[in-house]
This record gives sequence, structure tokens and C-alpha cells, in this order.
Amino acid sequence: MKLKDIVDGTRPLDPEWIGKAQARTDQLVMPTRALGRLHEISERMCAIQKTLQPPTNRKAVLVMAGDHGVVDEGVSAYPQEVTAAMVQTFLVGGAAINAISRLVGAEVFVVDMGIIPDLDVANLQSNDRLIVRKVGKGTNNFAKGPAMSRDDAECAILEGFNQASELFQNGIDILATGDMGIGNTTPAAAIGSVVCGADLEAMVGRGTGVNDEGLMRKRDVIRRGIEVNHPIPEDGLDVLAKIGGFEIGGIAGCVLAAAYHRRPVVIDGFISTSGALIAYALCPTVAEYLFAGHCSEEPGHRIMLNHLHLDPILDLGMRLGEGTGATLAMGVIEGAVNVFKDVLTFDEAGVANKKD
Amino acid sequence: MKLKDIVDGTRPLDPEWIGKAQARTDQLVMPTRALGRLHEISERMCAIQKTLQPPTNRKAVLVMAGDHGVVDEGVSAYPQEVTAAMVQTFLVGGAAINAISRLVGAEVFVVDMGIIPDLDVANLQSNDRLIVRKVGKGTNNFAKGPAMSRDDAECAILEGFNQASELFQNGIDILATGDMGIGNTTPAAAIGSVVCGADLEAMVGRGTGVNDEGLMRKRDVIRRGIEVNHPIPEDGLDVLAKIGGFEIGGIAGCVLAAAYHRRPVVIDGFISTSGALIAYALCPTVAEYLFAGHCSEEPGHRIMLNHLHLDPILDLGMRLGEGTGATLAMGVIEGAVNVFKDVLTFDEAGVANKKD
Repeated sequence: MKLKDIVDGTRPLDPEWIGKAQARTDQLVMPTRALGRLHEISERMCAIQKTLQPPTNRKAVLVMAGDHGVVDEGVSAYPQEVTAAMVQTFLVGGAAINAISRLVGAEVFVVDMGIIPDLDVANLQSNDRLIVRKVGKGTNNFAKGPAMSRDDAECAILEGFNQASELFQNGIDILATGDMGIGNTTPAAAIGSVVCGADLEAMVGRGTGVNDEGLMRKRDVIRRGIEVNHPIPEDGLDVLAKIGGFEIGGIAGCVLAAAYHRRPVVIDGFISTSGALIAYALCPTVAEYLFAGHCSEEPGHRIMLNHLHLDPILDLGMRLGEGTGATLAMGVIEGAVNVFKDVLTFDEAGVANKKD
Repeated sequence: MKLKDIVDGTRPLDPEWIGKAQARTDQLVMPTRALGRLHEISERMCAIQKTLQPPTNRKAVLVMAGDHGVVDEGVSAYPQEVTAAMVQTFLVGGAAINAISRLVGAEVFVVDMGIIPDLDVANLQSNDRLIVRKVGKGTNNFAKGPAMSRDDAECAILEGFNQASELFQNGIDILATGDMGIGNTTPAAAIGSVVCGADLEAMVGRGTGVNDEGLMRKRDVIRRGIEVNHPIPEDGLDVLAKIGGFEIGGIAGCVLAAAYHRRPVVIDGFISTSGALIAYALCPTVAEYLFAGHCSEEPGHRIMLNHLHLDPILDLGMRLGEGTGATLAMGVIEGAVNVFKDVLTFDEAGVANKKD
């Protein structure tokens, strides 16, 4: 499948299904739309899958991992080898994404989209959960030139598309996206700034926790990267190639896959949303299939979400990534859907409706 | 047990346990406190139970039901018999609280604190989930005099305390409070206004959905109720007796029980929080054991939460009651605790920590 075929094959939601779902909500034994945004969530879940019984049983999170040449500029508080070390931690079930996924009943899959080392997974218990689709061994330093070629950018998106498509074809009902990549708030902020047309002061935050000097350096690096590369905001592939990352391209592919296959996708925080921005630049219809799991503590995230017209489900000051916010929010989405499917109507319950 | 004994037996959290929990959080394999409020939640869960392994397996929601004489004033969009009809719906598992409780694994118990009819529960499958502790058959119309006697107010609180205590003694790890009572946003707003010293314009909302005329009438009824009864803001029992409700007293009792037994309690929206305000007026220490499940769409709720120094976990425009927001939030609390307990440390994972 080529990118053009994916975009051409992606259809907007059918408003008729929103209407059908709203009609059912109105019959549920509760005051009119008394569960607020839970109703919007369940109704969109219906419209996405064209059913009044949207399934949520099988959940998965795809954690996209990649390394970043821009780490050479000193933009992260952590050393680059932490990317691979955290991937290993995901594969032994020891990270936050694993704990949250076990709680909500989501399967965790980690995709090596382009980390520097080749992991020795022979000794891991769960090496079937690592999918190796390296586009490269880390990106180039985008402060000095393009992060990757245009071909590699397309490849990253298509790999993400294929991985997510396979999960959907294997019966996954709802997908969360996650990320791991030391330094990746830097390309994410660069993408956010270019695609949303936002100031670097508003868009760039401390990521994993750089100090004031590090924050100034990070802004300067991004400013140089944009000046050197001249990414074209309307061309998602150009933006990804020049100032993006392999895992960000993979996430863009997941988002495209969800919309193409008419399945819901819950994006996580700052990095995942930068991937969604790339997908949105390629195909704005994807936003109809997106749920924003949470609002990150990273200051630019709200600007990105506004660009996508998305309202986050959770807002708990999280800024970890890995898919933690998206996966935790899947519990809320499942609650919304279960209310929609399981609550009796006024008639069924024999309860009198409103007086007027 | 008398109220005085409960208050005297309630102890503040031990800050040493917060410190111990924070020390563990700092070792988890993630950037410093990268999960934001999830860390505050898990650390308080530790301090409440004085353990670094706080249990959350056994969850319950106590839905307190009562009728309100003030419904005679036309303050609700629904007829009074809906209170009992909804209790029946809870007992057959057909309401929103049942759907959400099934998802998060919480047991639902309904307490008849004072609804008007005597329910015929012989034919119900789950009549063991109805606990009848009627303090009266609905309160008096507080626009014309006290809602109940001071003795009945104390009785309502003690019944709630006893029900929640029994659950904790039977091994419930975390309790959510819920409510059902047509008309009960009226006493809840009256309590909020008196205890928080807030204007009726800011505190009184549309409840289940009264129109503009109904909203003005509701404010007028509350104004009259406060003028007629002169509740004393510092005397929680006086406020409950004069302008409260039986189920609100029961919720206050649940909150006191949680603090007394050192167990976490998640309060729901506007009505549950009015019950928490009564408990707080009697014993301010209770706030340390409280989690605010969500922020209600009812405008005065935020004022109540500020009075209790509580930050809500969810903010999704919900305004149903029943315990729906509290129970949905228990999923987030469990996620926070599972991360705290299950995530590896930097040392265990073999991951390098921050460079500086």
C-alpha cells in the first residue's frame, strides 16, 4: 500500500451513525446527557465502527522507539543509551506502560523503528513483543541538515501503518500509541511549531527535565534546525523527513491505519501528538478517529491538541510518554462505551422520564 | 460509637509515610515525577494505609438514597418516585453506576437512608445489595423549617459510618460514595453555600435539568430555607439537620468512617461533596483521606472542592451522581498505585539515571 492509496481510502465518519448513537443515549435511564463527555466518546466510538455495540475488549498499545541524532546538541537530561535500555524494560514488563496496560487489559507491542543498538532479545521472556522495523540506526542531527531522507520518512510511516493494520486485522478493537526515544521532545516540538505555526517559546518545554540552560539550548537547536531545513508545513512528509524522527513517523502511520480501517486510536502526549500532526497534515480526516488520551505537562501539547480540534480525556500533569496517558484513558473510553451498551432505557427500567 | 468518639479517634496522615513513598517514587525508572498527579495519588494511598504496598483489589461503592420534602417546591425536573425507581434499577444492575462498577471491579451496595416507599425487594436477584437503614420517609421541606431533627441528622451520619465501617472490616480496600435522591442538588447547594460562604448565584445549578424559571425558583427556595432555618456553618450537624438530606448524612458518615479506619474514600460529584463538607465541618482531618473523583458540571462543585483543598481526578462534564465519577476515577487511582508498586527501579532495570 502506498501513502496516496491510504489517504484516498480514508473516509470521514458517517454523521448518520452519530445521530443513531445520540438517539440511543437519549433513551438511557439518566437525565439528558448527564454523563457529559462520556456520551461524546461513546457516540464517536459507534460512528467509527458503524455499530451501536462498539467492541473494546481487545486493546493494544504500540510503543514506537527510535533514536535521535539531535541528542548530540545536548537537548536531553538523559544519555542516548537509555532508549534501548527502556525498550528492554518494556519487554520484561517493568515500566509504567506495562503496569497500566496490565490494569486496563491492553497488550503491549514495542516496535524498534530505529534505535541505535541491535537488541539482543534472545534472553527475553517476551521477545515476541518486540517488532524490529529499523528504518535506520538513529536519525541525523536535524540542527545540521535533514533528520532523514524523504524515502525514509515514507518508509517509517508505512511501517507504522503496517504494524497497526496487522493488529486491527488480528482483532484489536482499540489502539493506543506510545513512544520511547531519548531526545524526542526536540523533534516533536519542532514539528508542533512548524505545523501549528506556534512560537518556540510556547512550544518548547523541558522534556524529561533539562534545566534553564538546557531549555534555552533546546530552543536554539530547534530554531537552527528549522532555519537550515525549511520544512514545508503543508507537506507532512517533508516536515517528518527534515525535523522528525523514525518513531514519530511510525506513530503517524498508526494514526493513518486507524482511520483507514475505521478503528479508534488513542494518542498519548507530546510525541504521539506530533506524530498525529504529521498524519493530519497528510490526511485531515484522521482527526475524526482520534482520541486524545491526556494533556501533557509539556506546555506545547495544548497547542497541538487545539490544532487537531481534540479535547484531552485526562489532565493529570503526566509527561512520561510510553503511551501511559493513552492507555490509562482507554479505561475511561471503555467505561463510556459500557455505559452506552449496558444501561437500560427509561422504558426497560420502568422509570418515569422528565416531567416537561 | 458516638460522633465525638469518631472525631476523637481520627488521626492525621503521618508525613513520614509520604516521605517514604516519595523516596520510592524517586527510584522508579522514569524521569523525576514524570507521572504528575499519579505520584501524589499513590503516595497519599501509601500514607493513608501506612504501607508501600497499598491494596486496591477490593473496591466498593455505597450508593446512599433518600427523598426530599423540598421537592414540593418544584425544584426538580423529575418526579419524586424516580428515586425509588432508580434504586430498583441499581439493584438489577441496569444503571450507569452498575456498568462502571463492573468495569473497575467494584461491588455496588445501595443504602435506603430514607426514601419514601418501602421497596418490595423479594423479587430482585440482588436484594442482598440493598441495605435498609431508613432514618425517615423523606425529609421535611426545608424551605419551611428544618429538613430533619438534630437526632435524625446524627443518626444518618452514624448509619453511614456503620455501613462503611462494615465494608472496611470485611476487607474493602477503597470506597466510593454515590447518591440517589430526586431534588438533592437543592440541599447540596444549600449546604455548599452555607459551609463555603458562597453566593447562591455561583452555587446553585440546574441539577437534573431545570429550565431558567426552575433555576430561579430553586435559588429562591434555598434562600428561603437558609433564612427560615439559620444553619450555623461551623456546626456540621446543625447544617445537615436544617437544610440537608438523609443520604447526604450517610455520605458524611462514609467519609468519617474512611478517615477513622485509615482507608481511602473517593467522593463523587456535587451531592457527595456536600456530604464531605458536613464531615469536614465536624472533623477537618477527613480531607486527608479523601480523593475527589471528578469535577461535576454543576457550577458550585468547584467551590466545594476548593473549600476541601481537593483537586478532582477527572473533569468530563459529568453530572449524574450515583457514584459514577468516583467509581470511574477508582480506575485511575488503581493505575497510579500499580505503577508505584510494579515499576522497576533504575537499579533493577539497569537503566542509567539523569546525567546531572
